[in-house]
Amino acid sequence: MFVTHLECSATGELYEADKPHNLSRAGKPLLVRYDLDAVKGALTREALASRPAGMWRWRELLPLPDGVEPVSLGEPETPLVPLTNTGGPNLLVKDEGRLPTGSFKARGLAMAVSMAKHFGVRRIAMPTNGNAGAALAAYGARAGMKSLVICPDETPAINVRETAAYGAEVYVANGQIDECGRIVGEGAAAGKWFDCSTLKEPYRIEGKKVMGLELAEQLGWELPDAIFYPTGGGTGLIGMWKAFDELEAIGFIGKKRPRMYAVQAAGCAPIVRAFETGAESAERWENAATIATGIRVPKAIGDFLILRAIRESGGAAIAVEESEIALAVEDAARDDGFLLCPEGGAVLAAWREALKRKLVAEGERVVLFNCANGNKYPLPDKSGRLDLAKVDLALL
Amino acid sequence: MFVTHLECSATGELYEADKPHNLSRAGKPLLVRYDLDAVKGALTREALASRPAGMWRWRELLPLPDGVEPVSLGEPETPLVPLTNTGGPNLLVKDEGRLPTGSFKARGLAMAVSMAKHFGVRRIAMPTNGNAGAALAAYGARAGMKSLVICPDETPAINVRETAAYGAEVYVANGQIDECGRIVGEGAAAGKWFDCSTLKEPYRIEGKKVMGLELAEQLGWELPDAIFYPTGGGTGLIGMWKAFDELEAIGFIGKKRPRMYAVQAAGCAPIVRAFETGAESAERWENAATIATGIRVPKAIGDFLILRAIRESGGAAIAVEESEIALAVEDAARDDGFLLCPEGGAVLAAWREALKRKLVAEGERVVLFNCANGNKYPLPDKSGRLDLAKVDLALL
Repeated sequence: MFVTHLECSATGELYEADKPHNLSRAGKPLLVRYDLDAVKGALTREALASRPAGMWRWRELLPLPDGVEPVSLGEPETPLVPLTNTGGPNLLVKDEGRLPTGSFKARGLAMAVSMAKHFGVRRIAMPTNGNAGAALAAYGARAGMKSLVICPDETPAINVRETAAYGAEVYVANGQIDECGRIVGEGAAAGKWFDCSTLKEPYRIEGKKVMGLELAEQLGWELPDAIFYPTGGGTGLIGMWKAFDELEAIGFIGKKRPRMYAVQAAGCAPIVRAFETGAESAERWENAATIATGIRVPKAIGDFLILRAIRESGGAAIAVEESEIALAVEDAARDDGFLLCPEGGAVLAAWREALKRKLVAEGERVVLFNCANGNKYPLPDKSGRLDLAKVDLALL
Repeated sequence: MFVTHLECSATGELYEADKPHNLSRAGKPLLVRYDLDAVKGALTREALASRPAGMWRWRELLPLPDGVEPVSLGEPETPLVPLTNTGGPNLLVKDEGRLPTGSFKARGLAMAVSMAKHFGVRRIAMPTNGNAGAALAAYGARAGMKSLVICPDETPAINVRETAAYGAEVYVANGQIDECGRIVGEGAAAGKWFDCSTLKEPYRIEGKKVMGLELAEQLGWELPDAIFYPTGGGTGLIGMWKAFDELEAIGFIGKKRPRMYAVQAAGCAPIVRAFETGAESAERWENAATIATGIRVPKAIGDFLILRAIRESGGAAIAVEESEIALAVEDAARDDGFLLCPEGGAVLAAWREALKRKLVAEGERVVLFNCANGNKYPLPDKSGRLDLAKVDLALL
């Protein structure tokens, strides 16, 4: 294992590796640090390419100690699918819906649950807008742990039911995700369970970071011009930004970075508001509401890290309307046979908005993140009825 | 391209390659034949391993001519996930839910639509119990073709809606899949569209065959002891059996074959009935009914090929009750964090039945096919309510 220590993302204070952690003493996320010189000596692109595809081929850049078996449900390298008809051959969707439990939450939870199991944790908990809770419960079940999940009202029923199917204790509560998170935090403080909330434990981000590692490898070690990322807690965006620095330090990529675009819904856009006002962190968004529940996060604990990454990258934060989200989902399905999740629709809509604002140019190589399987979300019924006894072929 | 010709699966009559076909003059499925000696000379295991993973790495054993771009939505190699807690480390699920549109139907339709586009077909049609129609529509959309899909009553709403989202014309009809198929056949005969029904066009099976090719490669070129396959039309089972012969002919595997188990629901088990009575083909099953709609196929045109393969392999056909299907889905989710689709549940239930009947032994290496993403199917609501203003931590 190449982990040297953990570090407070706000103060730089150091913390010991290979033990369970939540927030730093300053109440901020901890980041895992590696001996990247040693990784550089130990890992070549060729060695990497010869391993089975998927997140565990990146073992030198992950915190799970050597010889410890990960808790796995088969985490593949997710494909990059061009939306050729919608935006041309350089508009690529990284389809995270192919992961276990049908969302990119599997990456973070595979890592966090693997670490928790290694540390002997017996019960895990989190607040969730849906997909993260399902992933927690699935990996928890596999690891033989108990899971507790608290979801806000309006969490999609499919996620709530799926989470319970994995044997988790699931509650639907009258509040937003940060309010559900308060209960999870109190129970963790009382020693009832381990808190697996986004960025309140340091290993989920290491799993999410693999999106950035994979992207670099898939594109021949040349990062794209821009990345559009659906931003709730922002773990993936922060994680990819960290991944790119680590890849440069081990000599796998050069200095080029993509412009990072954090995408939010107009009904819950705290990062966009902070970005536009020049603030370093974001105020809580009141009365948050959007069909894209995965990005309905009024207050993200990593807000300052998200804002820092998008500014350093020369990117931006972009909010999109509900009608634009729905239109984008419809268009990509009809024109490219690709069913985006609502958050993926938001990302496509944001790319269209960025084209209009000339933040991106036609033909630039852009990666959109589709964070979950589109089949998890309700669609309108557009079918007709046919009476087989009275079919008039001329009408078909 | 290494295709030499097509061949009637019943009479052996030869047909010209590289053109659209439906059934043979004898009304039976056509099978694609290759110059396997030439493939043996052209393809090594090492060359294969160096290509990007996924179905298109098998190009020498597929019918799409060299240089023709496939119609693709990103078809990965699907993972083999052990159901360790449910059945031990040698009970492997091949998780076909990771494919585009969330089911193994993507394999066959990626191939069939690629060929249809190559031949200049403009409109495609099929009857479907759900997932095949969605895959037809998605690949059709990508290829710029029009699609028409006719579904029986009781086709899951999620499939019907998904298919329409891809821009297909979708009808729900008062009959079983073979009755819907009759209308599709009549329209095809009238020149209104091309009929893409299972085994009524010869290229879907070539896509499905890749399941067998992948399996061999993933298991280090040593096939498993047994395969349990959810059997409706049976294309995948027939396709894998064909794949194994082709792999042996090109020197990639030896003579060992898995025992093939065709799994059906007790409410629609024509193949099981034919297997048990020693018949060479199957009678239509009247009043077919099962929650596992993907295997609700009263009459399969490839029945004699399915029966031949399972008998040659030393396998069997096994029917399972609805309650056993539901129990298997529940158990794998709760104990292994793996959400099977109902057809996947049927397959796990059949493995349990086979253990009881001593058809398989504990510890044998067995592959179960989970044909679709479990998230496409309804689950019970087992969540509780939580009032955030009145939480008693002691009760959580």
